[in-house]
Amino acid sequence: MKGKVFFVGGGPGALDLLTVRAVRTLQQADVVLHDELVPQDFRELLSPSAVVINVGKRCGYRGTTQDAINILMIHHARRGRRVVRLKSGDPSIFGRLGEEIDALREAGIEYEIVPGITAAVAAAASARLTLTERGVASQLTLATASLANEQTPEWHECIRDGSTLVIYMPGRDFQRLSLQLLGAGADPDLPCAV
Amino acid sequence: MKGKVFFVGGGPGALDLLTVRAVRTLQQADVVLHDELVPQDFRELLSPSAVVINVGKRCGYRGTTQDAINILMIHHARRGRRVVRLKSGDPSIFGRLGEEIDALREAGIEYEIVPGITAAVAAAASARLTLTERGVASQLTLATASLANEQTPEWHECIRDGSTLVIYMPGRDFQRLSLQLLGAGADPDLPCAV
Repeated sequence: MKGKVFFVGGGPGALDLLTVRAVRTLQQADVVLHDELVPQDFRELLSPSAVVINVGKRCGYRGTTQDAINILMIHHARRGRRVVRLKSGDPSIFGRLGEEIDALREAGIEYEIVPGITAAVAAAASARLTLTERGVASQLTLATASLANEQTPEWHECIRDGSTLVIYMPGRDFQRLSLQLLGAGADPDLPCAV
Repeated sequence: MKGKVFFVGGGPGALDLLTVRAVRTLQQADVVLHDELVPQDFRELLSPSAVVINVGKRCGYRGTTQDAINILMIHHARRGRRVVRLKSGDPSIFGRLGEEIDALREAGIEYEIVPGITAAVAAAASARLTLTERGVASQLTLATASLANEQTPEWHECIRDGSTLVIYMPGRDFQRLSLQLLGAGADPDLPCAV
């Protein structure tokens, strides 16, 4: 059998917010390389012979390097294994998926993406809110506060009438973040959910 | 038993891209009010006694009015039923959820939101692409081409360096849309997936 890598969206953390396809993909996995913030009880779904490797980084702490993750994926896929790369939320949103795909393409390894519930919609569901509103917010911007070069994002480009802004990876200092947003022109009365 | 409305994300159309929670919620439904673009085989999940009502609008055609949908939800929930309002994608993104929540709050009906796989991430997974890329695209904007007042969206606000744009409900005329985007300053070489 040819090995393959499955990028699986682990969703916001609750096991029942995995998709049915994600559950089935995990059940059939030979190897799981998982990030830190995935459902803690995902091991319940695995075959007893599955190998589980935590490659996660915790907020502010470095974990396994990106190179090491790429090497592990390729190593196991080359041996014909079904490798699940379990990421939090959805793999295509702030998940460094591009870098991992590039490595697999270069190595000639097949891959597939199983989408997941991203934090923006999970948080909206949990807070029982809508993210768009007909006639009020016809756009939704997902932005990360944590840029590759540690620069401050161009917040003034995200703060617009008719647009909802969701901030991923805000860090720990919400006061600093809110001052940045106000400095970028946010209305002090702009509704905000944390 | 007190009635309740569950806004359930139906995802992009494949039954196995429902979350486990969405499947369980459908299995326990007494009444399902569904949009047009939901997984066609969702009825397989329902109890034989469940009542199914299609309240969908097809691209360009009017279906059940928003008022009628609100009245149906409230009617069945008041009779103690578990009502599932099955929407395509995720309920909080371009799903007119706000209007339905307002009606339920006014009527004093409990509700819950079960998130779903929204079209942006479903399309990315299907095309095996990432939507953000470290150092290249640190923002993602979801915009609808179909505004409440039939105006043209402010595309120049969405076309920015470092940001990916996903357009929902683009309509049928992709040439007109691409000319609008070019007129708003899009680089003719901007990569685009349809």
